Amino acid sequence: MKRAIHIGLIGHKFMGKAHSHALRDLAMFFDPGVQPVMQTLCGLGDDLEETARRYGWLSTTSRWQDVVADPAIDAVSILTPGRLHCEMALAAAANGKHILCEKPLALDAAEAARMYAAAEAAGIRHMVNFNYRRVPAVALARQWIEEGRLGRIFHIRCSYQQDWPLDPETPFVWRFDKSVAGAGSMADKGSHVVDLARYLVGEFAEVAAATEIFVKQRKEDGVQREVTTDDAAVFTARFHNGALGLFLTSRMAAGHKNRLAVEVNGSKGSLRWDLERLNELEVYTAGDGSAAGFRNVMVTEASHPYAGAWWPPGHVLGWEHTFVHQYYEFLKSIAEQRQPAPSFLDGLRNHEVLDAVAQAAVEKRWIEVPRARGAEA
Amino acid sequence: MKRAIHIGLIGHKFMGKAHSHALRDLAMFFDPGVQPVMQTLCGLGDDLEETARRYGWLSTTSRWQDVVADPAIDAVSILTPGRLHCEMALAAAANGKHILCEKPLALDAAEAARMYAAAEAAGIRHMVNFNYRRVPAVALARQWIEEGRLGRIFHIRCSYQQDWPLDPETPFVWRFDKSVAGAGSMADKGSHVVDLARYLVGEFAEVAAATEIFVKQRKEDGVQREVTTDDAAVFTARFHNGALGLFLTSRMAAGHKNRLAVEVNGSKGSLRWDLERLNELEVYTAGDGSAAGFRNVMVTEASHPYAGAWWPPGHVLGWEHTFVHQYYEFLKSIAEQRQPAPSFLDGLRNHEVLDAVAQAAVEKRWIEVPRARGAEA
Amino acid sequence: MKRAIHIGLIGHKFMGKAHSHALRDLAMFFDPGVQPVMQTLCGLGDDLEETARRYGWLSTTSRWQDVVADPAIDAVSILTPGRLHCEMALAAAANGKHILCEKPLALDAAEAARMYAAAEAAGIRHMVNFNYRRVPAVALARQWIEEGRLGRIFHIRCSYQQDWPLDPETPFVWRFDKSVAGAGSMADKGSHVVDLARYLVGEFAEVAAATEIFVKQRKEDGVQREVTTDDAAVFTARFHNGALGLFLTSRMAAGHKNRLAVEVNGSKGSLRWDLERLNELEVYTAGDGSAAGFRNVMVTEASHPYAGAWWPPGHVLGWEHTFVHQYYEFLKSIAEQRQPAPSFLDGLRNHEVLDAVAQAAVEKRWIEVPRARGAEA
Amino acid sequence: MKRAIHIGLIGHKFMGKAHSHALRDLAMFFDPGVQPVMQTLCGLGDDLEETARRYGWLSTTSRWQDVVADPAIDAVSILTPGRLHCEMALAAAANGKHILCEKPLALDAAEAARMYAAAEAAGIRHMVNFNYRRVPAVALARQWIEEGRLGRIFHIRCSYQQDWPLDPETPFVWRFDKSVAGAGSMADKGSHVVDLARYLVGEFAEVAAATEIFVKQRKEDGVQREVTTDDAAVFTARFHNGALGLFLTSRMAAGHKNRLAVEVNGSKGSLRWDLERLNELEVYTAGDGSAAGFRNVMVTEASHPYAGAWWPPGHVLGWEHTFVHQYYEFLKSIAEQRQPAPSFLDGLRNHEVLDAVAQAAVEKRWIEVPRARGAEA
Repeated sequence: MKRAIHIGLIGHKFMGKAHSHALRDLAMFFDPGVQPVMQTLCGLGDDLEETARRYGWLSTTSRWQDVVADPAIDAVSILTPGRLHCEMALAAAANGKHILCEKPLALDAAEAARMYAAAEAAGIRHMVNFNYRRVPAVALARQWIEEGRLGRIFHIRCSYQQDWPLDPETPFVWRFDKSVAGAGSMADKGSHVVDLARYLVGEFAEVAAATEIFVKQRKEDGVQREVTTDDAAVFTARFHNGALGLFLTSRMAAGHKNRLAVEVNGSKGSLRWDLERLNELEVYTAGDGSAAGFRNVMVTEASHPYAGAWWPPGHVLGWEHTFVHQYYEFLKSIAEQRQPAPSFLDGLRNHEVLDAVAQAAVEKRWIEVPRARGAEA
Repeated sequence: MKRAIHIGLIGHKFMGKAHSHALRDLAMFFDPGVQPVMQTLCGLGDDLEETARRYGWLSTTSRWQDVVADPAIDAVSILTPGRLHCEMALAAAANGKHILCEKPLALDAAEAARMYAAAEAAGIRHMVNFNYRRVPAVALARQWIEEGRLGRIFHIRCSYQQDWPLDPETPFVWRFDKSVAGAGSMADKGSHVVDLARYLVGEFAEVAAATEIFVKQRKEDGVQREVTTDDAAVFTARFHNGALGLFLTSRMAAGHKNRLAVEVNGSKGSLRWDLERLNELEVYTAGDGSAAGFRNVMVTEASHPYAGAWWPPGHVLGWEHTFVHQYYEFLKSIAEQRQPAPSFLDGLRNHEVLDAVAQAAVEKRWIEVPRARGAEA
Repeated sequence: MKRAIHIGLIGHKFMGKAHSHALRDLAMFFDPGVQPVMQTLCGLGDDLEETARRYGWLSTTSRWQDVVADPAIDAVSILTPGRLHCEMALAAAANGKHILCEKPLALDAAEAARMYAAAEAAGIRHMVNFNYRRVPAVALARQWIEEGRLGRIFHIRCSYQQDWPLDPETPFVWRFDKSVAGAGSMADKGSHVVDLARYLVGEFAEVAAATEIFVKQRKEDGVQREVTTDDAAVFTARFHNGALGLFLTSRMAAGHKNRLAVEVNGSKGSLRWDLERLNELEVYTAGDGSAAGFRNVMVTEASHPYAGAWWPPGHVLGWEHTFVHQYYEFLKSIAEQRQPAPSFLDGLRNHEVLDAVAQAAVEKRWIEVPRARGAEA
Repeated sequence: MKRAIHIGLIGHKFMGKAHSHALRDLAMFFDPGVQPVMQTLCGLGDDLEETARRYGWLSTTSRWQDVVADPAIDAVSILTPGRLHCEMALAAAANGKHILCEKPLALDAAEAARMYAAAEAAGIRHMVNFNYRRVPAVALARQWIEEGRLGRIFHIRCSYQQDWPLDPETPFVWRFDKSVAGAGSMADKGSHVVDLARYLVGEFAEVAAATEIFVKQRKEDGVQREVTTDDAAVFTARFHNGALGLFLTSRMAAGHKNRLAVEVNGSKGSLRWDLERLNELEVYTAGDGSAAGFRNVMVTEASHPYAGAWWPPGHVLGWEHTFVHQYYEFLKSIAEQRQPAPSFLDGLRNHEVLDAVAQAAVEKRWIEVPRARGAEA
């Protein structure tokens, strides 16, 4: 009989749906060594009860403080907007709950450093939900890079493009307000591209950047409000291993709904991947002679990461599977009593890069990515 | 409070997994108007209990007869090899159970006609699981064709390619034995291409065909056995509406794991779709002037079939979602007390085409697709 | 000093332009061992003189009989509509001229057999301009198949799609008249797909087919005329080596301007190619393990057929280069006094297949591809 | 009778071949209003005579001074390494010759400014061979942007990737020596990406950059030499119109032979193009509702720039056609006595950007793109 891990989920909208689905699917396909129990769904709104019933949660609450304090709960998932992450995580850690926190981990590196320190001090398992590490094709890319198939890495290009507020008549929402959202495309999309780059290439050394707000005002209840978060950002980077990086995040890229694309070039080969075709990984290997070319690998074989747990080869997976894989890793780390990756330290490192990018954009010069206190590992 | 529909599932392997997952997912994303209950999982093998537990079934049995006779059960899903479909469906219909049957519906049109007649006589809901109709992109293709966006249809090309037994050392399994499997690539893959063609273009009028067994013998426990099912089939067709069709099914197409691809050309435009990139639909519209070209539509918008129930635009779906959508349609038809599509009549029509193809390959001439008795609708 | 080969070109429209350009380009990039001289351009129309001047021809004539009889001319290129090919070729052969003839070689196999016999009897070099054999990617595909990289060939799919008369208001031209054009999509496009299949897979054994005229009447000077040539044809084939084939030719395939696409599957791998991306060859090799996938080879390396004569790797070639390569092969065969391929025998074999396809469509049964008298080789 | 323009070509290697071919092809397909005469080919090496004969030049010389001084010559094409451009162009201008100069125009903006001033003072036609403006798809992209189809431009991404010296054993050549080549990937490839961005988006305002030499030493005759030119560069930009830009140039990008790729996103749509598939232009238009998607336009229609002069729709063009189109524009400007684009002013502007990029990489800060003296237009 496996040990039960009772989970409290804070947030019941889009992310709440994705996390709930992952917890429902998990046991059918994976065995993390413990048994997750969907204990408490926490959220605000009239639809909480109905949602909890549909998703399969045993209980609900509108107070997150109840979740982190509940002795029946072993692990907490934090899915709220970023400005609440720190307070919630500190409270959860203080109560000894394991934590899976949505990305970006905090509002900035300072907050993230406090969260990391608290989590470490509490001896809990802590993880940031950079779910795209769990796409089988991305995990395979990492594996191949680690095995040296690409040789020394020379450059990485990574972009995350969406177009949801392309229409200037798109109404003002909290994401346009810096005091609430922290940043625009750099927060949500930027944290993903930085994580992918760290996962595939390594640590950032320095960055240069520019950001822009293309639509300066948007209407809220018929009144024009100032937009204070970036519509798009471009930045370049140098990594500790000497590689160069090139990054774009934009919510104003017409035609792209959710396009996270990456290319890595090394001394022995190259890799390409794109979230909109997430089951495919393109790989080029130098030395294939007159038959050399980018090869399109359908990452659905039993020998590929995570893929064997699902369906036979060629039966493609969808976006939400990344959450299933993430919970598998999170719960396995609880079962095996070791720290999972990406941990809060990765979340902190991520913020260090994002902070440097923001500073570089303001100061209009290259900025070294600092190491926050407590993150010397 | 919604009416509960208690389901019995006969088959617990690959298809059992896909159907079970669909039933688990369904209520989170769709409301068919009734509440499915995962009552009984039926299968043979030591892993039945453990499987049922993991998938969430309330009870198990190794006797399918118990399932179809159980008064607590409202609907039965038949997922066994084809030669058992007819007997099971007749028994289920006799007991007034609604039926969702895997494809191909039966071994031939004669059996399928009996099943259709019995189901109609019993007044039950009956459906064949041609799940690819439920890919949002395919449903959208159908919608656009019905709206006349392609004009009059001129031709369709459809192929289903896999390569699992490409290696001649692949051991002999039941699929190589005609007495068990009925046919080779024509049974499993042929029924899908015929259904897609019927769904998108309409009824077949006549066919010509050739089949081939490329690897004539395979080893079973070290002994060579004769392969009696086709490795590949090619066939051409003329439809009642005058369109021409071109079809390939193969299990020996190197490099293709599960590639079902279709192109339809009409007087006003064209469509292309491919199961390995199932979220995308390519469409060409004549009359776009100097900007004309095939357009790649990511079928994940709220306005697209089924897609709105899942995630925001650009968050791609996987193969197994087709089963969720199929159960949604099946259960909705039960709730609304009307016949779903594709029904057993579609399963019968499908067999009429496949039978004609088989006959055409033997007689080496064009064969009119007959109408079986009882299927004059 | 190389021997001069004086060329007479019969036809000065689209094909005349492509051939003239090839002759102008040839000497800059290739050395066939003889020196082509653009002697005489033959055509009808007021623009003949001006065209000849622009293209670089030394003289002109409106009488093809003058070309084939001119003692100053060594080789003749026949680019007229098909019904004139036979008479011209017989006359040219009788005068000892080498011949490069446009495809299809004749109106049917009977004519083609006479042309082949006459050419052989005259001891001249004879070639049919199946120019797509000269695409570097296609030549590479052939080379790889010959080397056994694909193993035993199982199936080939080949289609040639255009849409120029998609609009039913497209006026009646000679291509819609069977008495002039011989056939519709089957003549122009059919001869290409058959040649590609013969080049890559081998000889056809038997065929089944259907053709269709979707727009039955078109207007000529305001008067409706009956269309008597096929808008589209579908056919299947069995090859002597046991492979299956699947073919579509259509002039009513919306969105396709000039799409000739082929896929070949064998026991060890697969190949894909498409004229609209003619510099690319996709290849799959079984046995690449978890990194297996279709590889996109840019066929512009010095080691690739013809490519080294042009530009550095990655500098793509256009459609007209196929004609340059064809003249290179034609003239080299003259220099080396050996028969080039594809010869009139290939043109004859091609017609044998096309005739069988036409007969199969009429008789609605599989037809063996006959061997014409005189083509027993 | 058209006026003859006698041309002298300085350089007879790779570029000499491309330019010679363009001049041979030109008159067959285009009428610039004057008649080019291939007068003198200038180069060093034993193969000059033979090359001139093969390419069709009337005379040769090994002294470029003879070309620019020859009264029989009307126009000069300068194809030598960059460090000779300035001296040659000043001499040619002093002699009143029209000039088509290869890119980059000079070694830096200072030189380019002198060349521009001299050319303007001499009243000659002057042009820089940024040939990719002459790809039909690129010219169409520009046309659509000018017409406002993309609305206001938000960002451009452009990369030029090759991999010719990927192997560290690739011997040392002049391109690795800064004193000869000026720069590495930034010179050859950088000038192209900057020109494309200026052509499609407008003038650069400021830049930030990083460059890297991945292989620090390479062997020349068995002896290690220091590499002093960049293997790769990344840079970001802000344009005067507020758009953001993101650029990569690399000669160490495994798998890319000659990949120049660009994407432009605007308030109403997006464009994508790639040199390795140069006949295709992808375009997205916001507002297409549920059928919105990137559309692949084959830019071979008579209504597309330059395409109508060649072949029917769907017959793709190759890389070298860009040179034909460039000479057409150059000669037409001579015939019509007006300045062509891209002129030496564009060459100068290009250098201003490249110089700023180089400075930004050294100073590690954003650098405003200056306006050189004499280029205030």
